[in-house]
Amino acid sequence: MSEQIDSYTGYYKSFTDKYSQLIDTFISDFYKEKIEYAESDYMKDMYGIILEYCLRDGKRIRPVLMLNSYLGYRKGFKKIKEIIKFGAAVELMHSFLLIQDDIIDKSLTRRGGGAMHILLQEKYSHITGISSIGSDLAIVLADVVFVNAIEIINRADARAGDKSRFLDIFSKTYEKTAWGQILDSLSSKPKDADINSDTPLRISLMKTAFYTVAYPIIMGYVLAGEKKKSEMMSIEEFSLPLGIAFQIRDDVLGVFGVEMETGKSVDSDIEEGKFTLLVQSTLQRLPVPEQEEFLKILLSEKKSGKQVSFIRNSILHSGAADDTLARHLELIAEAEAKLEKLRLNESAKNVLRGVVDVISHIPADISSFR
Amino acid sequence: MSEQIDSYTGYYKSFTDKYSQLIDTFISDFYKEKIEYAESDYMKDMYGIILEYCLRDGKRIRPVLMLNSYLGYRKGFKKIKEIIKFGAAVELMHSFLLIQDDIIDKSLTRRGGGAMHILLQEKYSHITGISSIGSDLAIVLADVVFVNAIEIINRADARAGDKSRFLDIFSKTYEKTAWGQILDSLSSKPKDADINSDTPLRISLMKTAFYTVAYPIIMGYVLAGEKKKSEMMSIEEFSLPLGIAFQIRDDVLGVFGVEMETGKSVDSDIEEGKFTLLVQSTLQRLPVPEQEEFLKILLSEKKSGKQVSFIRNSILHSGAADDTLARHLELIAEAEAKLEKLRLNESAKNVLRGVVDVISHIPADISSFR
Repeated sequence: MSEQIDSYTGYYKSFTDKYSQLIDTFISDFYKEKIEYAESDYMKDMYGIILEYCLRDGKRIRPVLMLNSYLGYRKGFKKIKEIIKFGAAVELMHSFLLIQDDIIDKSLTRRGGGAMHILLQEKYSHITGISSIGSDLAIVLADVVFVNAIEIINRADARAGDKSRFLDIFSKTYEKTAWGQILDSLSSKPKDADINSDTPLRISLMKTAFYTVAYPIIMGYVLAGEKKKSEMMSIEEFSLPLGIAFQIRDDVLGVFGVEMETGKSVDSDIEEGKFTLLVQSTLQRLPVPEQEEFLKILLSEKKSGKQVSFIRNSILHSGAADDTLARHLELIAEAEAKLEKLRLNESAKNVLRGVVDVISHIPADISSFR
Repeated sequence: MSEQIDSYTGYYKSFTDKYSQLIDTFISDFYKEKIEYAESDYMKDMYGIILEYCLRDGKRIRPVLMLNSYLGYRKGFKKIKEIIKFGAAVELMHSFLLIQDDIIDKSLTRRGGGAMHILLQEKYSHITGISSIGSDLAIVLADVVFVNAIEIINRADARAGDKSRFLDIFSKTYEKTAWGQILDSLSSKPKDADINSDTPLRISLMKTAFYTVAYPIIMGYVLAGEKKKSEMMSIEEFSLPLGIAFQIRDDVLGVFGVEMETGKSVDSDIEEGKFTLLVQSTLQRLPVPEQEEFLKILLSEKKSGKQVSFIRNSILHSGAADDTLARHLELIAEAEAKLEKLRLNESAKNVLRGVVDVISHIPADISSFR
């Protein structure tokens, strides 16, 4: 990278460049070995599909936060080669979740390629008459990826106690995320929507704040041989506002983003009728008759261009957009303050400051929609 | 149990009675604690559903084989309370697989109750408009059960090395079974059936022989602190013929069983068009025109009573039934011979002899179908 590092963002970007490459190389070698030793051709083919899927472009933010935390808390000798394996396991858990999410949401694409169940449907539907073959296979293959993560953790060389504490948080990470996913499913297309429910916030906490920020940092912390409850609390105090800010950023980009930058249609969140914090804030601000119309349109199966515009305009004119952006800034400020309390070394803090920088910036041109 | 133990079967039954109760109690306490500490009502409800599901009547053969192996190989102090936890984890993996199998096969019932996705559909379809809510939730809940098994293993008190070797086999067990499931899906409703393929045998090996017999015994062996490759090979030499015999027994019961004893409709295997070893042997013995008719009917979506009878009669008259029963006896004899070579103590061998006894007996009244 010839680009000069002149901000905290640069620390984060260069850290990511370095470590995501090491993680990807490990994942690549791991599946190449699986392919080599697989006893059947169909296994080789499917390990190959997993490999392509796991190595697609992505932020790798979870393993990056985990590794940065490990390096920032670790006092003694740093076994970086072994620690990369734990990072790879964190990334594989993410692939597993993406495969599963796409089956449940019936999504067609992911990270610039086909969703896993779509790839499998295309490849195998000509040999069997089972119409659901793509998702049938993807359900099982997702779990193969997950159990491969367990295998990698179990075989990595680390102190037994540290590894066991890591695996404990790793399991908790999945379980909490699963409960978030379940709550998300239960509250999608509600037959009786409660506009003051804390459900959207709780889903964001479980599916984003704990999953993407808090637990990866805690995993790095325990892997570094540390186990103070007070520091884990401090990590959560930093991570949860940052995670909610991250989710809000995502929600705002989902409605006002520029397609070229977000990589997905700027209408898709509205079309899917996602019940985000932004949508909730809109509903709370609209007068009752408009509220009902907004909700009816949001939850309808198909939406016209005019209806999509109506939703976007309501979000703007109700004041929910400005309100949510203000809340985003508050959350960022809170995360910045809590960051300083962490007992991380300075270079790991710089990387985290870079993460906060990236999340604080929302590349949306809201004024153009006004 | 007042019944007198007068055969090897008795050793197996009384061992199962004793240990399946301990395993069930552990699973029950584990989920009651989850329910107590769950932060939301929907989590409490779903942990309750998992608990009811996992405690349904079942053979518990996998944890029983694992525990019997541990006790039979273990030389030093036996921490039975901790070892029960590993047994519970093996049983939870089984529940996870049953939930997943039923989603994929679109089965309605399991072990005398509703399939998990059906239970969830009934309970939650009134609150959301998502038509696939039952299976969406079941896909995730199955993985919660699986990760709970990992949590239990990780927290159990055992020597780090033994635990790690156990977890390695545990992961391998899932992965091999997954490949069996995938091969099963790929070869169901084939558009171009190959009657001489070794696929049915390979599926039986992966989904039954390794999963139900070999790996549970190997898990008990490594948990006992042992790690000789030669003994693991001996375990496989005993387990694989027994596992195939177990599968054949199941296949024969699926066609000629007595509904009262098998707990499922005697026509269901035929109606589903299962491509078992028994069916394969039939196809190989039929002359070409009949072969085509048999295959066409077997793979058809709906079958009349007459067509079901045609399938059953072909299996009988082709000689496939007798041939398969003879093969079953050979496999049992092979397992009996290999059992004697195992370096297990005598009481553990008696339990295994009981398992062989049970599998050797096929409670089907084939003559009544002739």
